[in-house]
Amino acid sequence: MKTVHILGATGSIGVQTIDIIEEFSNTYKLGCISANHNIEEVLKICKHHSVDKVVMDGQYEDTFKQHFPFISFKALPEGLIDLVDSIEEGVLMNALVGRVGLEPTLKAIDKDIDVLLANKESLVVGGPLIKEALKKSRSKIIPVDSEHAALAECLRGSQIEEVERLIITASGGSFRDLSNDDLKNVTVKDALNHPNWSMGAKITIDSATMMNKVFEIIEAHYLFDVPYHKIEAILHKESLVHGIVEFQDGNVLAHMGPADMRIPILAALQENKRMKYKSLFDLTKIGTLHFEPINYERFTLFELGVNVAKRKDMHVVTMNAANEVAVSLFLNEKIGFLDIERLILKALHHFEGTMDFTLENVLKHDEAVRNYLRKDYT
Amino acid sequence: MKTVHILGATGSIGVQTIDIIEEFSNTYKLGCISANHNIEEVLKICKHHSVDKVVMDGQYEDTFKQHFPFISFKALPEGLIDLVDSIEEGVLMNALVGRVGLEPTLKAIDKDIDVLLANKESLVVGGPLIKEALKKSRSKIIPVDSEHAALAECLRGSQIEEVERLIITASGGSFRDLSNDDLKNVTVKDALNHPNWSMGAKITIDSATMMNKVFEIIEAHYLFDVPYHKIEAILHKESLVHGIVEFQDGNVLAHMGPADMRIPILAALQENKRMKYKSLFDLTKIGTLHFEPINYERFTLFELGVNVAKRKDMHVVTMNAANEVAVSLFLNEKIGFLDIERLILKALHHFEGTMDFTLENVLKHDEAVRNYLRKDYT
Repeated sequence: MKTVHILGATGSIGVQTIDIIEEFSNTYKLGCISANHNIEEVLKICKHHSVDKVVMDGQYEDTFKQHFPFISFKALPEGLIDLVDSIEEGVLMNALVGRVGLEPTLKAIDKDIDVLLANKESLVVGGPLIKEALKKSRSKIIPVDSEHAALAECLRGSQIEEVERLIITASGGSFRDLSNDDLKNVTVKDALNHPNWSMGAKITIDSATMMNKVFEIIEAHYLFDVPYHKIEAILHKESLVHGIVEFQDGNVLAHMGPADMRIPILAALQENKRMKYKSLFDLTKIGTLHFEPINYERFTLFELGVNVAKRKDMHVVTMNAANEVAVSLFLNEKIGFLDIERLILKALHHFEGTMDFTLENVLKHDEAVRNYLRKDYT
Repeated sequence: MKTVHILGATGSIGVQTIDIIEEFSNTYKLGCISANHNIEEVLKICKHHSVDKVVMDGQYEDTFKQHFPFISFKALPEGLIDLVDSIEEGVLMNALVGRVGLEPTLKAIDKDIDVLLANKESLVVGGPLIKEALKKSRSKIIPVDSEHAALAECLRGSQIEEVERLIITASGGSFRDLSNDDLKNVTVKDALNHPNWSMGAKITIDSATMMNKVFEIIEAHYLFDVPYHKIEAILHKESLVHGIVEFQDGNVLAHMGPADMRIPILAALQENKRMKYKSLFDLTKIGTLHFEPINYERFTLFELGVNVAKRKDMHVVTMNAANEVAVSLFLNEKIGFLDIERLILKALHHFEGTMDFTLENVLKHDEAVRNYLRKDYT
């Protein structure tokens, strides 16, 4: 039995990870979980699984203890690190959303625990820190993002030095077919209506701005140790081909599959042995696959973001923090959709791009950017 | 240096294999070669390469010896087996066309020589014999056919037991867009005009009848040891996705690439280390990929052929021999395009489908079928 501890257990990836654990209950079991506010879901999970520890917002402690007096409960935010620190065996699914995922990832690496990483912001803001930490650890980072899981599948049995190009696909998000002008008046509801994937709110907005694809390029850079000029994103509106690897000998492998995160979640859990799950893919029913370059004039944040990433300085932390604040403001209807880019640009102009990548500096810088942008909206 | 001996050196695959040997002249060198009648090309090859032995139709011996008195020359047909028998090191590229490729393949296996197999008829008529021979040998069969090379790429790093389905693609051949009625009056010239691939005459006709796809399903069955119900062919008119593997965990890998046989030839030569060759593939320039089921009413020979294959008896030898005779008659304008299927059906009705798969029986049966069909056209 492999024990799976989940940070973000009530989010989209968390829930689907639990689906897989239930599907393969002879092989995987649930360990510790964290959530924010969804106490109903947490109680449901604890009813069906032998959970070791729960971390949530402290306000739920009494309610939780009434139902499960013998399960350990810790409050956020310290509880997250405490949870990772208490892990004795198994793997950690980090399905947190945002920069908050970085410290648990680093803690797990420090403890030689394998991390199934759905929290892309860990690598976006802490890529150099994570790479450094991995050198001193026996733990691995296993991608859960569909695009990176796809690339990992294509890379099986090959060497990273043999790669000519890594290509990830972008659906184009909720506003793929709108013009720049149309974007002025889109609503939160419009934005959350993704054509192919059902995901959490933040990543759905990041898909609409294409910031998500910038993050995925950064993620691919650190996960596979491939330079930025060998990583590309292309538009593929069906979201059925998730990742493509072009090798230097002319062979090209593409990973396909339905837009179902349980496939990459299982792939991350099972490592090299393929479990018997399901195969529901029929290309002849799909009929046609389309591919086109990303239009930089339409997806302006994509070009900006990739250029920021290539600088490899603290601007990437600025960009991520500004994006988190802006997306949150948009979801709370405090700003319009196009203001997301405006706030990111504002922050990038205001802050310096130093190279001092220590955890302390990253967290301090992240906090400064958040405070700078939030002050106008309190 | 790896020595590459080529049977069928002046054919399409032979010439492209020599291209690759020249491109990677620090890694590969030419050993022995065979050809039929193309003495000009053979002389050219011997001028540029240090060839050990030449096998051709005996009528060219004098001409050849005038130019290269110190290179060993043997006459067909015995020369083929003699060539394989004389190999001391290196690999054999079997790029012969038709059943004649079987004995050299078996001889190479018997001598522990790895066979790069472009001669699909070896496996079509001698699948059980080759499997049996491989059990007692250290040699491997490495696929060169683009579809099987593609499947091998998708299978890297996975186990064959993990496969749910192997899928090969079919372009539909020269007459893809014609109706059954249109086929009555097509000419040899029409048939040789393949939309995507430039190949030898026989395989181009086999593509138009879809017999080639039947052969490839048989080839996949024996190469990868996968039962017929897990092997499928689908129509893909762009010929850019060559093979697809659906795994039991829901992951699907597809191999893509331009319609250039040098890529699978290099893949077969290099084995697991990827040489630096070329990468000219740009999906965004291609734009759209189409997939559809094969229409059995249009490609009647495909359904017939797959059913014959599944019987696993001597009918597959009948089918192949009849196809070779019929395609040859068509290429010589003795019969019409639709007569190919008629002759195959005639032979299948006339001969029994025994199970006595010895080399002697296979060759005797093959000869009997050829004589039976040829007698009406001499």
